[in-house]
Amino acid sequence: MSKMKSLLIICDGLGDRLTDGKTPLEVAKAPNMDKFAKDGITGIMDTVRTGIRPGSDTSHLSLFGYDPFEIYTGRGPFEAAGVDLELKSGDVALRCNFATLKNGKVIDRRAGRDEYGLEELAKEVSKIKFKDVKIIFKKCAGHRAVLVLRGKNLSSSITDTDPEALNVPPAKSRSIDERPDSRKTATILNEFTKKTEKILFEHAINKGRKLPANVVLCRGAGIKPELESFEDRYGANAACVSATTLIKGVCRSMGMEIIDVRGATGHVDSDISGKVKIAIKTLKRYDFVFLHIKGTDEASHDGNFDSKREMIERIDREVIGPILEKVKNTTIVLTADHSTPITIRQHSADPVPIAILGDVRTDQVEKFTERECSKGGLNRICGIDLINIILDLSDRAKLFGA
Amino acid sequence: MSKMKSLLIICDGLGDRLTDGKTPLEVAKAPNMDKFAKDGITGIMDTVRTGIRPGSDTSHLSLFGYDPFEIYTGRGPFEAAGVDLELKSGDVALRCNFATLKNGKVIDRRAGRDEYGLEELAKEVSKIKFKDVKIIFKKCAGHRAVLVLRGKNLSSSITDTDPEALNVPPAKSRSIDERPDSRKTATILNEFTKKTEKILFEHAINKGRKLPANVVLCRGAGIKPELESFEDRYGANAACVSATTLIKGVCRSMGMEIIDVRGATGHVDSDISGKVKIAIKTLKRYDFVFLHIKGTDEASHDGNFDSKREMIERIDREVIGPILEKVKNTTIVLTADHSTPITIRQHSADPVPIAILGDVRTDQVEKFTERECSKGGLNRICGIDLINIILDLSDRAKLFGA
Repeated sequence: MSKMKSLLIICDGLGDRLTDGKTPLEVAKAPNMDKFAKDGITGIMDTVRTGIRPGSDTSHLSLFGYDPFEIYTGRGPFEAAGVDLELKSGDVALRCNFATLKNGKVIDRRAGRDEYGLEELAKEVSKIKFKDVKIIFKKCAGHRAVLVLRGKNLSSSITDTDPEALNVPPAKSRSIDERPDSRKTATILNEFTKKTEKILFEHAINKGRKLPANVVLCRGAGIKPELESFEDRYGANAACVSATTLIKGVCRSMGMEIIDVRGATGHVDSDISGKVKIAIKTLKRYDFVFLHIKGTDEASHDGNFDSKREMIERIDREVIGPILEKVKNTTIVLTADHSTPITIRQHSADPVPIAILGDVRTDQVEKFTERECSKGGLNRICGIDLINIILDLSDRAKLFGA
Repeated sequence: MSKMKSLLIICDGLGDRLTDGKTPLEVAKAPNMDKFAKDGITGIMDTVRTGIRPGSDTSHLSLFGYDPFEIYTGRGPFEAAGVDLELKSGDVALRCNFATLKNGKVIDRRAGRDEYGLEELAKEVSKIKFKDVKIIFKKCAGHRAVLVLRGKNLSSSITDTDPEALNVPPAKSRSIDERPDSRKTATILNEFTKKTEKILFEHAINKGRKLPANVVLCRGAGIKPELESFEDRYGANAACVSATTLIKGVCRSMGMEIIDVRGATGHVDSDISGKVKIAIKTLKRYDFVFLHIKGTDEASHDGNFDSKREMIERIDREVIGPILEKVKNTTIVLTADHSTPITIRQHSADPVPIAILGDVRTDQVEKFTERECSKGGLNRICGIDLINIILDLSDRAKLFGA
């Protein structure tokens, strides 16, 4: 056998618990996923570690073999990388929302999800100045933005200014470890919040908005991690097909090529057919292609069982069907980055189902569901080992020893 | 229950992938192995770590509870220990082949596997001198030898001179980490190669050989690891019954007794019946006996499905049959050090099947195959934990805590 290509398909938040005795995967009609399971080897996987609730960033790091317990400081740097912001060593990056304050209290954390005028407001915010710390502020999709603090002696050991609650004031950022760097950074972030209020409160743009965007709330402070590139690490060049800023940022941080996917929105209405075509085309040029589908997670966070089931059925038809038909001589993996049970509407530590097609020991599992896959030939594996399993099956693994 | 003896049977490279939908273990008629699985507890095992392709040295270290990620530098020192060469702290050892050069290019990496006169040529090579580095050179089985570099400031962070390819010159050894010690060692090894050419090229012995043995190629540089002895570590005295130099070396490095097994060759034609008799006899004197059977790996590297199946059937008849019949009151383990799939003719990271007989919770698995064992009561375990499992079942484990 010669070296094979590898295709990793991750359906965000796909795993679930029981609603009326069944998971969405169990209720969905997904004949292609079931064929995938039948012809492959299956199992369940703890994407970060057994019992740990993974974020989408930590789980993807882990699934690419980068231990998040060693390298993860916060989400900010990956959001920044996702919008093409070049970070320098020592930069602290945070994810931000434009939000709405009334009488000093947050009444909408997303300023009505209304993009009107935010580009111009972002330009105003980016003019904020501090004596020895530079501000970089960039608007992202919707009401979101990224803030980078650049200067000496900064730290990401600070709490968020986003209170993640309504009818309370913006939170005061505090140092987590009481080191001088952290106290300094928290102070600057609190001043930043006040300055955004001052600049935005009376801004003309806000007269034309239903809900004014009159404060910027920040969270997920992190220092840029220094990651060895995927290609240096594994000897395989890699490309990412995703519409999600955070995921693109994670992949860009490890030097993967980010493939442009217009029409893919990351929502349940995304043009996933187009994305699949791009992924299949990308396999011609890259050893390892990662295809990320976000819609399943969105439906889960909304607590909408039927929407999740429908999204699974669309993925089955529009993603798995064409891939089974067109992709040959390739190790193909179908799995998720974490479970997002409908019952709790947030990420959980429940292991995710996984199926692998290729030069594998097929097992007797015939349905791609959480409970069927738990009987599979892989048994229960850990996400940090997945990339090595894939590279071994694609005959791209190095021998350890002799 | 009182303390029991333990017998660990490792069939080298036994695990496999599917050829025409079956593994060699699945096709082989192996009623004794199946009885072993039926009466015992079964599972699958990642001998080094999930997704990692193990060498035979790293996997055996791991299976005896010594973490190869902590202690392994290269194969050389284990080869040296396998031929009874006493290494000193700081020694760098390498495995060597006598090979054939023509017009400066390697045309046979094993000099025709012809032993004629190699003992005398080895004596010549061992006369090579360097100013501040001592050379120890010892012929092993066949065309193989071991080279030890002894002196101050040597390093094993160097690349091989064996190009592992034909029609190319011997490779230049290079420093891997660019430290002065490594550069010095690489330089010496390159000079050693040239000196072997000079000594061997016109040597009279080579006139009588079909293919001249006119260069020595080296690989697997390693520093002697300082291992706590098996007996000190586990409170059980241990013996190794193996015909393979490398495996004997690994076992000698941890202070195991190496039992002489004349007639056992490590090949598919090995006198494994004699070896089993010795192993059973050895159990009288030792708490822990390790029986290593090499032939399965050889058949796998040759890509010969039928030869592997036949070797499995021989092991079933000549090893497992007599052991089931004669060995009582002993924890007996049947497993492999790694998979060597026929499809890829090299080691792979696929987990190996394992079955344990003794004071165990038997499961419903009735066949000793990769896929049946994946349904067993052990689930999927890691090789580094195996020795503790065995000692626990033999009632020789220490309590951790109170």
